[in-house]
Amino acid sequence: MIYLTRRACFNAAHKLYNPNWSKEKNEEMFGKCANEHWHGHNYQLFVTVKGVPNPDTGFVINAKELRDIVKKVIIEKVDHRNLNVDVDFLKGQMTSTENFAIAIWRELAPHITEGTLHCIKLCETENIYVEYYGE
Amino acid sequence: MIYLTRRACFNAAHKLYNPNWSKEKNEEMFGKCANEHWHGHNYQLFVTVKGVPNPDTGFVINAKELRDIVKKVIIEKVDHRNLNVDVDFLKGQMTSTENFAIAIWRELAPHITEGTLHCIKLCETENIYVEYYGE
Amino acid sequence: MIYLTRRACFNAAHKLYNPNWSKEKNEEMFGKCANEHWHGHNYQLFVTVKGVPNPDTGFVINAKELRDIVKKVIIEKVDHRNLNVDVDFLKGQMTSTENFAIAIWRELAPHITEGTLHCIKLCETENIYVEYYGE
Amino acid sequence: MIYLTRRACFNAAHKLYNPNWSKEKNEEMFGKCANEHWHGHNYQLFVTVKGVPNPDTGFVINAKELRDIVKKVIIEKVDHRNLNVDVDFLKGQMTSTENFAIAIWRELAPHITEGTLHCIKLCETENIYVEYYGE
Amino acid sequence: MIYLTRRACFNAAHKLYNPNWSKEKNEEMFGKCANEHWHGHNYQLFVTVKGVPNPDTGFVINAKELRDIVKKVIIEKVDHRNLNVDVDFLKGQMTSTENFAIAIWRELAPHITEGTLHCIKLCETENIYVEYYGE
Amino acid sequence: MIYLTRRACFNAAHKLYNPNWSKEKNEEMFGKCANEHWHGHNYQLFVTVKGVPNPDTGFVINAKELRDIVKKVIIEKVDHRNLNVDVDFLKGQMTSTENFAIAIWRELAPHITEGTLHCIKLCETENIYVEYYGE
Repeated sequence: MIYLTRRACFNAAHKLYNPNWSKEKNEEMFGKCANEHWHGHNYQLFVTVKGVPNPDTGFVINAKELRDIVKKVIIEKVDHRNLNVDVDFLKGQMTSTENFAIAIWRELAPHITEGTLHCIKLCETENIYVEYYGE
Repeated sequence: MIYLTRRACFNAAHKLYNPNWSKEKNEEMFGKCANEHWHGHNYQLFVTVKGVPNPDTGFVINAKELRDIVKKVIIEKVDHRNLNVDVDFLKGQMTSTENFAIAIWRELAPHITEGTLHCIKLCETENIYVEYYGE
Repeated sequence: MIYLTRRACFNAAHKLYNPNWSKEKNEEMFGKCANEHWHGHNYQLFVTVKGVPNPDTGFVINAKELRDIVKKVIIEKVDHRNLNVDVDFLKGQMTSTENFAIAIWRELAPHITEGTLHCIKLCETENIYVEYYGE
Repeated sequence: MIYLTRRACFNAAHKLYNPNWSKEKNEEMFGKCANEHWHGHNYQLFVTVKGVPNPDTGFVINAKELRDIVKKVIIEKVDHRNLNVDVDFLKGQMTSTENFAIAIWRELAPHITEGTLHCIKLCETENIYVEYYGE
Repeated sequence: MIYLTRRACFNAAHKLYNPNWSKEKNEEMFGKCANEHWHGHNYQLFVTVKGVPNPDTGFVINAKELRDIVKKVIIEKVDHRNLNVDVDFLKGQMTSTENFAIAIWRELAPHITEGTLHCIKLCETENIYVEYYGE
Repeated sequence: MIYLTRRACFNAAHKLYNPNWSKEKNEEMFGKCANEHWHGHNYQLFVTVKGVPNPDTGFVINAKELRDIVKKVIIEKVDHRNLNVDVDFLKGQMTSTENFAIAIWRELAPHITEGTLHCIKLCETENIYVEYYGE
């Protein structure tokens, strides 16, 4: 069993704002992240697939195919988008890095058919990242 | 003459959209950057001050003071903000990295009274940055 | 279960020197790290907390609170300090990266009350880091 | 139990080419990586050893000794070499990052006698890396 | 005048070998870099263009166009190639980082028609890079 | 004219403390950097040499020779040392990054006999660096 990780980058806007709460409570909980006019990030997404290398190629999964799957299933839907407004698979959710990583797992897992999806690591800034292993 | 550089980081939303153009022309010129619902970045700002070290301190400028000036004059106005909507000193301008760096220079230069402001370097992503030397 | 990691940076002096050994044996074992006048590092500390996201916030733990806890419990005691001399929770120990990471875990774990402390990763240089999972 | 990681860097040429396949099938599968005249990478190797710190030193393994073992057993055989042509322990294998990491584990594991080899992480570019845990 | 820089990455094989010298003299001068079977690098290329921002766009040059020019004129000719064998514009030259940067300038300069090419920075490893300003 | 830069890393202890001032004035000016028991950094030193490439080698200066000069003249005197106590060429000076970079220039310049020393860049943390061009 070996683990292959591929990085993809994208830029998106979002805010942390719970519509069931007052503006004051949102600002108390989320601080500057609650700014109604949005802020944004250069996200880095690391997708890890595990499996046994194919003897003919030496690959768990062809890294180019993995790149293309991640691009089609995730990056094209989130790059240069507003996570709260533009992204179907985040509708109705707080766009915390935690929830975003879990949502990416759910979108991506059915498309990984060579090897098995092992981890979604999502970096919001150089100081904050989350990891999700599917359970 | 020696050059001291201090980095500061901030996260902001913006879009590239010329209000004098049609939506089509904006999308042709700016592509995904024209998304009406915004996108965003983790910006890195490098402020360079030049001068002769003070013999008592060895400093061109106290790096802590430089940090505090940059924080007060720039970061507090742009961090977790929408560059097009929330930032007075960018009003009416295209929020390209080029224009943003020039605007930061204009805001910051009068506040650098120990040494002289030499360069504003502003990184939008790991692949794109601009430098401005004041003229 | 999701894992949230927050980075904090600090600068400290230390040396590796076992007082039960001769100077010669210390230099043989620790080389330049045994220099009696100290050396130092820009440490990077990565604190990982695991848990289930709160449905109201999307957070395992509010990353700002985590930052504040790490700052108060660890960073203020080690930043710009001498690890061998100034840090109570390292007294009487070799200040290896291994021992330092374990000591940080012991200090920090009781203060993590939202989610559970999962990992302390401590980077001494770009070439050396340790990870500790509490057991 | 604590985990110590040491990084080592090296530069090597390779190509991905299955000699049992036609040139067309190789190009279809491996794209530019099949270029018969080779390409190359700045590889980063992260070797993780786990164990209990020695009470006299605070070390799982002396990081200098680990550096010397990795240098002698791996780096001197692969740095500024052609992985397909010059490296005995890769002979007859596809030089995918997956296979290369597994081969490094097999070469290195018998030489780690303080602590136990835990992980080989091998980065081919800033976008692709693999991890192998020995089984 | 403002300076915009765009990064591009590529992976290539090369060796340093002067055909007018003996094998011994080559090895004495170039050490491991003279390995006849090649080695390789993950190169990072930073292309800097200077100019005055266009008032309609805020751009010195559209960074997407700059990316496309660099991709077509340079990256497609050097990525996953052997610099000594496959690259027309390096034929008959030592493929030192210095010569390579100068050759990139000569190829690229005529294609930069918005703004003016200011600098080619080429990083061979994390420890070595060159800069060329066209004269 | 082309510019070649070589990076070297070292770890050192220091403090900022003017012996002509009271402890209070030192703490007011230098804050935590005045801690009498020292702190430390992972310094990164970038040495830039300019010149015309030698037609036989393609080199401004052989990067291996530059590495060896920097190692012998600077790194061996500062790595794992206390800048205030152990380093002859800093005696009697404030060990600010500014003064340190100027002192490195003065030590190193006479030893660069292929090409000409162009710049000393010295990074103290990821947020602070200085550049010195010899005048």
